[in-house]
Amino acid sequence: MTMRTEPLRVSLAQINSTVGDISGNAQKIRGYIARARDEGAQLVVFPELALTGYPPEDLLLKTHFVDAAGAALDEIARDCDDIVALVGFPERRDDVYNAAAVLADGGVHAVYRKMFLPNYGVFDENRYFQSGTQSELIELNGIAIGLTICEDIWEPGPPATSEALSGAQVIVNLSASPYHAGKPLEREQMLLQRARDNLAAVVFCNLVGGQDELVFDGQSVVIGPSGEILARAPQFEEALVTCTIDPGQSSALRLRDARHRAAVRRYRERGGEPCPVVARIAIDSEPEQIEGAVAEPLEAEAEIYAALVTGTRDYVEKNGFKRVVLGLSGGIDSALVALIAADALGGVRVTTVVMPSPYSSGETQEDARTIARNLGTQLIEFDIEPLMKGYDAVLAPEFEGQEPDITEENLQARMRGNLVMALSNKFGWLVLTTGNKSEMSVGYATLYGDMAGGFAVLKDVYKGWVYRLVEWRNEREGRELIPASVSERPPSAELRYEQRDDESLPPYDVLDAILLGYIEGDMNAEQLARQGLPPEEVERVIRLVDLAEYKRRQAPPGIRISTRAFGRDRRLPITNHFRDTIRAAAAAS
Amino acid sequence: MTMRTEPLRVSLAQINSTVGDISGNAQKIRGYIARARDEGAQLVVFPELALTGYPPEDLLLKTHFVDAAGAALDEIARDCDDIVALVGFPERRDDVYNAAAVLADGGVHAVYRKMFLPNYGVFDENRYFQSGTQSELIELNGIAIGLTICEDIWEPGPPATSEALSGAQVIVNLSASPYHAGKPLEREQMLLQRARDNLAAVVFCNLVGGQDELVFDGQSVVIGPSGEILARAPQFEEALVTCTIDPGQSSALRLRDARHRAAVRRYRERGGEPCPVVARIAIDSEPEQIEGAVAEPLEAEAEIYAALVTGTRDYVEKNGFKRVVLGLSGGIDSALVALIAADALGGVRVTTVVMPSPYSSGETQEDARTIARNLGTQLIEFDIEPLMKGYDAVLAPEFEGQEPDITEENLQARMRGNLVMALSNKFGWLVLTTGNKSEMSVGYATLYGDMAGGFAVLKDVYKGWVYRLVEWRNEREGRELIPASVSERPPSAELRYEQRDDESLPPYDVLDAILLGYIEGDMNAEQLARQGLPPEEVERVIRLVDLAEYKRRQAPPGIRISTRAFGRDRRLPITNHFRDTIRAAAAAS
Repeated sequence: MTMRTEPLRVSLAQINSTVGDISGNAQKIRGYIARARDEGAQLVVFPELALTGYPPEDLLLKTHFVDAAGAALDEIARDCDDIVALVGFPERRDDVYNAAAVLADGGVHAVYRKMFLPNYGVFDENRYFQSGTQSELIELNGIAIGLTICEDIWEPGPPATSEALSGAQVIVNLSASPYHAGKPLEREQMLLQRARDNLAAVVFCNLVGGQDELVFDGQSVVIGPSGEILARAPQFEEALVTCTIDPGQSSALRLRDARHRAAVRRYRERGGEPCPVVARIAIDSEPEQIEGAVAEPLEAEAEIYAALVTGTRDYVEKNGFKRVVLGLSGGIDSALVALIAADALGGVRVTTVVMPSPYSSGETQEDARTIARNLGTQLIEFDIEPLMKGYDAVLAPEFEGQEPDITEENLQARMRGNLVMALSNKFGWLVLTTGNKSEMSVGYATLYGDMAGGFAVLKDVYKGWVYRLVEWRNEREGRELIPASVSERPPSAELRYEQRDDESLPPYDVLDAILLGYIEGDMNAEQLARQGLPPEEVERVIRLVDLAEYKRRQAPPGIRISTRAFGRDRRLPITNHFRDTIRAAAAAS
Repeated sequence: MTMRTEPLRVSLAQINSTVGDISGNAQKIRGYIARARDEGAQLVVFPELALTGYPPEDLLLKTHFVDAAGAALDEIARDCDDIVALVGFPERRDDVYNAAAVLADGGVHAVYRKMFLPNYGVFDENRYFQSGTQSELIELNGIAIGLTICEDIWEPGPPATSEALSGAQVIVNLSASPYHAGKPLEREQMLLQRARDNLAAVVFCNLVGGQDELVFDGQSVVIGPSGEILARAPQFEEALVTCTIDPGQSSALRLRDARHRAAVRRYRERGGEPCPVVARIAIDSEPEQIEGAVAEPLEAEAEIYAALVTGTRDYVEKNGFKRVVLGLSGGIDSALVALIAADALGGVRVTTVVMPSPYSSGETQEDARTIARNLGTQLIEFDIEPLMKGYDAVLAPEFEGQEPDITEENLQARMRGNLVMALSNKFGWLVLTTGNKSEMSVGYATLYGDMAGGFAVLKDVYKGWVYRLVEWRNEREGRELIPASVSERPPSAELRYEQRDDESLPPYDVLDAILLGYIEGDMNAEQLARQGLPPEEVERVIRLVDLAEYKRRQAPPGIRISTRAFGRDRRLPITNHFRDTIRAAAAAS
């Protein structure tokens, strides 16, 4: 294999596909191919399964769905005569593969099939795909390019290493890498190490946008063989970024790096065959040096906030809603949801509903009105007191002699849920729910009440982070979009007189620490107590989390921003007699 | 290996484990070991993961959970000195395996690890387990016994074949095989063929009972090497069944069957090593011939009905509810749910609530009262008209100039949901919902209204089957538990005057045929139209099914009785632009 040093001009097409919209995605892909050509690219890389959107889930069990994707791919290929496009699609042959098509010379020139299928966390790829068995190279104007898809490059070994040891100067990765807080940085660090370990440039193209509970952050990147960032697409936005890679840099590093030479020797000694070159393509073009744009990554709060805005916007837009509606209590959770909705859609597409009862303080109502005014949302007010009296009257014969309890509190939440849903039904608006992860964890939310709605914006955001995000957003605005009183008031559901959340629960910082260890860390009660968390609270919170599983199962979807979100990411039985107590752990050890 | 002809006395311990209840399950297992010993068994076989219940789902990601199971297993082993027990448990060593422990001589003598991990349909076993790599035999009093777990024996090849070719005269299978209609027969046919193909007795022990959406039917069985049923446990009941197997029968068949001898030769020629014997155990006991009980399988209606009763009873009992409550409309769906609840728990543990509105006919209310009387359920009546007026008044300012529509209909359903939930909250009763699969498919149900509740008994039962089951149950009773008028009246939600379901939907037989093809069969619109189903109805119904995904995501769990239930079995995105139309199919082909 000759080692050419002519530069390669590559575009990252960081697109926002829509699951199932094969023709719409195909049209978008063709548009980006044209733009990449205009920018002078010889190679344009799309995300994993860009053609179907990710994850298509059980649509992949329909032969007609997979075949429709194949037909659309052939159409796209016709556009590729003076440019090479790598497009993620599901390939049906002897079985279905998660594949990357090499589109060139107006046809599907070759196909790479994903070798490592993730089947943990939010992933179910063994349910759908056969795994590929072959590392593959293509040659473009003599430059050897190794192909990988998403999970493939998280593996420190082959296919990336075998491709590099077979001469690949560039490793391409088509990805649909779901976001969680901090993951963009971790992922880029991993890619950077892959580039250095393999002495190859890494071209990583990630999906962007929201799909039900998942959000994809983008941050596609081109990294040189010594770890330098040559181009970086922005987070949470569609983008086309083009830059020039000098493959000669890889060759030069390999000549002077004895470790690489030794590794090639060991690879051959262990019987490693050179990876096959599945396509050799030549494209005439003028050499040209293109400096890639390098977007700055967002800071922690901005990143999470952008994930929430993106997830909300895409759920609303992709499902065709013109407007969202939410109950605004004057508390911090609904305030943050209104803020995110207004940032995602504009205040003019948001309706906020204030629904006071006799337990609602004048202050919280006034704060709610202030927030609506600050964000420019439509404001509707309903007094629920007459409804409360109506239910009391209807239920009186059955409830005679019973003390008021959680029943009456839940009824208030359900009346409010009914009213917001009535607006939704009458006008076609999407209802956003406002519960946060801390509440969803311990079941401090009313099914069919405040949990009633189509999308749960804060479902994966702990209470502590709710405060941080409001503070950060106010600071960014340079004024109090959300009044300080909202953050300073002790949290209360205001379902009875003088109710305070932190009197029935541990303080939110303790609660969040227990939840983080139990939910994200799979720790048991004993381990949490050993960390210094109060043992009785630990046991009580764990018990509440377990008992609330049935509620969460009926919760609307919400945006995943953690390493273990409720939903596809955490699959626990409802019927579950396992009791995690400190005594039990001590007895077992 | 010597081929002994001494008989083997084996017990099937068809138990109902509870997920997560390791100590309770362990106690139950010890009880069955004692009973099997009393019945003279030398070997007692338990279901797959009998110790943890099945499926434990993400509990398996907690090391302390898996370790607790291991500790409990050691306890159980101490009971096994004069009997061998095969107990399903999760084994943690280098990784976690779905395993069968061979308990003998007071200890864990050997472990077999499941080789085929199902990861389709309702199964996610690749998420949790490492696969075993070795077929294994044990020898009990010189009789060679091959070990397999559930999916292993659905494979026509190894481990069962390699074990038989290595001399196993008995193949044991520890199973947790989730029910769907007709599966018990299919499964027994498969096991019978495995016995004949391998000229070995098959000892199959299945789990029984309900776990969230799954129900396990039992019907454990011992089959002789020429396919004769030696013992069969009943369906949907715990049972211990003991019988004698004559391994000499297997040896005799193999001597005179040239195909087996040739297969052994081919196996060796292809380099097949004899499977290792991982335990050799001797148990003193008097030879004794025990005739196994052979329970008769249920007919189709009885089987499905028993599945629904079992699933309902176990959800209620395992989750600790004393009583269930449901809205009784006088329609056939709620009538069937009341019937199932009364059969599962006794009418005295069921509360039925009649909640008429001005649109409710006197006839349906009278039928509801008759049903409550026939079943001996508590009857509560609430008139929702005052609540309807209350909501109208509160919403009037926002709804001015708007025509009444689905909004007002949904509100009625939600008031009823609130009232039933109020009873649930006040008295701790479980709410059963009454929607059937046909309605859940097309979204003819109100979120937070008639969908509000903890368990959806008919979630996987098509409307046509609702009629059949009521008819069958009336016949079995020899009188009209459910009045004929309930079955004969045209279906209506009675949410407005003269509403009839079959005016907005195709007749239920056509609807069910479309749904069956689309949901269970993954057919597209074109294939369904080719079957003679009306093309416009096909397209409309498919569209309705796709659009209702968001509703189903918030539905309570319900009992799976089909090959594709909503829930873990059918994982479709909510945000999904794939449109399956006849035109689209024609264009793609």
